[in-house]
Amino acid sequence: MSQEMEHVEAEITRMKAQLQALSAKAPENKLSMVVFSGDLDKVLASFVIATGAVAMGLEVVMFFTFWATPVLRDKNKKEPGKDLMGTMFGKMLPKGAGAVKLSKMNMAGMGTAMMKSLMQKKNVASLEQMIEMAGELGVRIYVCEMSMDLMGLKREEMIDYPGLDFAGVAKFLEEAMNSRVQLFI
Amino acid sequence: MSQEMEHVEAEITRMKAQLQALSAKAPENKLSMVVFSGDLDKVLASFVIATGAVAMGLEVVMFFTFWATPVLRDKNKKEPGKDLMGTMFGKMLPKGAGAVKLSKMNMAGMGTAMMKSLMQKKNVASLEQMIEMAGELGVRIYVCEMSMDLMGLKREEMIDYPGLDFAGVAKFLEEAMNSRVQLFI
Amino acid sequence: MSQEMEHVEAEITRMKAQLQALSAKAPENKLSMVVFSGDLDKVLASFVIATGAVAMGLEVVMFFTFWATPVLRDKNKKEPGKDLMGTMFGKMLPKGAGAVKLSKMNMAGMGTAMMKSLMQKKNVASLEQMIEMAGELGVRIYVCEMSMDLMGLKREEMIDYPGLDFAGVAKFLEEAMNSRVQLFI
Repeated sequence: MSQEMEHVEAEITRMKAQLQALSAKAPENKLSMVVFSGDLDKVLASFVIATGAVAMGLEVVMFFTFWATPVLRDKNKKEPGKDLMGTMFGKMLPKGAGAVKLSKMNMAGMGTAMMKSLMQKKNVASLEQMIEMAGELGVRIYVCEMSMDLMGLKREEMIDYPGLDFAGVAKFLEEAMNSRVQLFI
Repeated sequence: MSQEMEHVEAEITRMKAQLQALSAKAPENKLSMVVFSGDLDKVLASFVIATGAVAMGLEVVMFFTFWATPVLRDKNKKEPGKDLMGTMFGKMLPKGAGAVKLSKMNMAGMGTAMMKSLMQKKNVASLEQMIEMAGELGVRIYVCEMSMDLMGLKREEMIDYPGLDFAGVAKFLEEAMNSRVQLFI
Repeated sequence: MSQEMEHVEAEITRMKAQLQALSAKAPENKLSMVVFSGDLDKVLASFVIATGAVAMGLEVVMFFTFWATPVLRDKNKKEPGKDLMGTMFGKMLPKGAGAVKLSKMNMAGMGTAMMKSLMQKKNVASLEQMIEMAGELGVRIYVCEMSMDLMGLKREEMIDYPGLDFAGVAKFLEEAMNSRVQLFI
C-alpha cells in the first residue's frame, strides 16, 4: 500500500471511532418527565405533553414521585393492611386521579368541579381518560419506590396500567440522560 | 480504480451519511420553556431566563399555558363578549402582568407590593418591563389554545406583543425537540 | 498525487471539520438544575436527583434562586447588619434547611414534622444530611445574586459548602447549554 493510502486509511479509522463516540452520546428520540406535583392541573399538563409527544413519534417515560404518586392509586382497589402511619397517609392523600384538586382556585372543590365540567363541555379528556390513553399509546410510567415507601403506599393499590413499573431515581436519570427533552413538573 | 480506492470511497460515503444523520439530530442553539405557573415570582424567573438566554446568543421560545395564560391579558383592552363561564373566569383570573401575585408570602397583597417596591429600588425590571424587553429581543411567545378555550379568554384581550402566536402542545414539542435547553416553569 | 487521491483527501478534510463542529456542540455529561422552590419536598427532590446523578457519573450544577436561596442560610451564623427591609425579610424567610416546610399538608408544621420523622424511620437522609453529602460528592452550587440582593441576604450568613459560589443567571445558562439534562424545580 502506498504511504498516501496508509495515511488515508488511518484517518478513516480515527473518524469512524469519533463518529461512533458521537452517535453513542446522541440522545434518543425520547422525552422524560419527573411528575412531582399532585395537582390536577399539573398532572393533566404532564399527560397532555406525554400523549402529544407520542403522537409526534417520541418515546415517553414518566417518573411519578412524591405528591404525584397517590394520583396513580386505584379508587376501586381495597387498601391492603397498613401500619398506623400508612393508614393515616392513606386517608389524607387523594385516592386516585378522580380525587385530585387544582393547585389554584380550588375553592373547597368548587373550582375543581367547575374546571372538570368545563373540560367535558370543551371535549378535553379527563385525567382518568388521559391516563388510559397514555397507557394505550405506550407511555411508560415508573413509580418512585422511595415515595411509595414514605407514604406507605402498596403496589396492590395502584392502578392497572400497561408497563407500570416501580423504580428509584437512578432509573429515571438513566432515561433522562438519553432523552432529547426532560421536564420536571 | 484500485480495490483499495474503492474501499476508501465506500467508507467515505458511509461516514458522510452518518455525519448528516448526526447533524440533523443535533439540537439548535435554542431554549424552550413551558410557562405553566401564573405566580409573579415564577413568571418573572421565566423572563429573567428568557432575556438572559437571548443575551447569550440563544433563540428563545416560551409556551404560555394554564395559569400563565391570563398573565398575557392586556388590562387596557375591553373584554369581548363572553358566555357566563367565560365572564366568571374573566373576573377571577388576574388581568395581566400587573395583577399577578407572589406564590408565597403574598399576605393579602402586602408581600407582593413589598417585593415590587424592592425590585424598583434595586433596579430590577418589573414584569411588564421584562415582557416588553423580551418582545424587543425577539423572544417568541406561543399561547396555549386549549387554555385560552378552557378559560374563555379571547385573542382580542391579549397584549400586543411582536410575534405572539396561538398554538397547541404539538407546536411546543416541535420546538423543544430541537432545543438545547428545555424547562417547565 | 492522483486526482482520485486528491478528492479523497478533500473529503476527509471536510468531514474532519464537520466532526469537530459536532463534537463542540455535543453536551457534556452534566446535569443542571434551577432550584427555585423553597419547599422541603422539592428541595429534597433536587438533592435526591443531584446525588443520584453524581453516582451515575454525571457532573452536577445547582442554581439556587428565589425561595430556595434562604434554604442555604446557616442557622448558627449571626446575621450581619441589615437595613430595615433586609431585617424584615430575614425574619420572614426560613433560616436554613432545618426550617423549611412541605408544600402540601404542612398543617401548621405537624405534617412536616411527621414527614421528617418518617424519613428518619425509613432511613432517608434529612435535607441537612443531603446537602452535606452533595458537597462531599462535588455537586457545585451557585446562589443567585439577584435573589440575595432582593431578599437582603448576605454572603456571611450562608452555609459553609465546598465550592459554593455566587452568580447571575448567565452563569447558569452557560452550564445548562452544555448539559445533557436540565431541570427547573
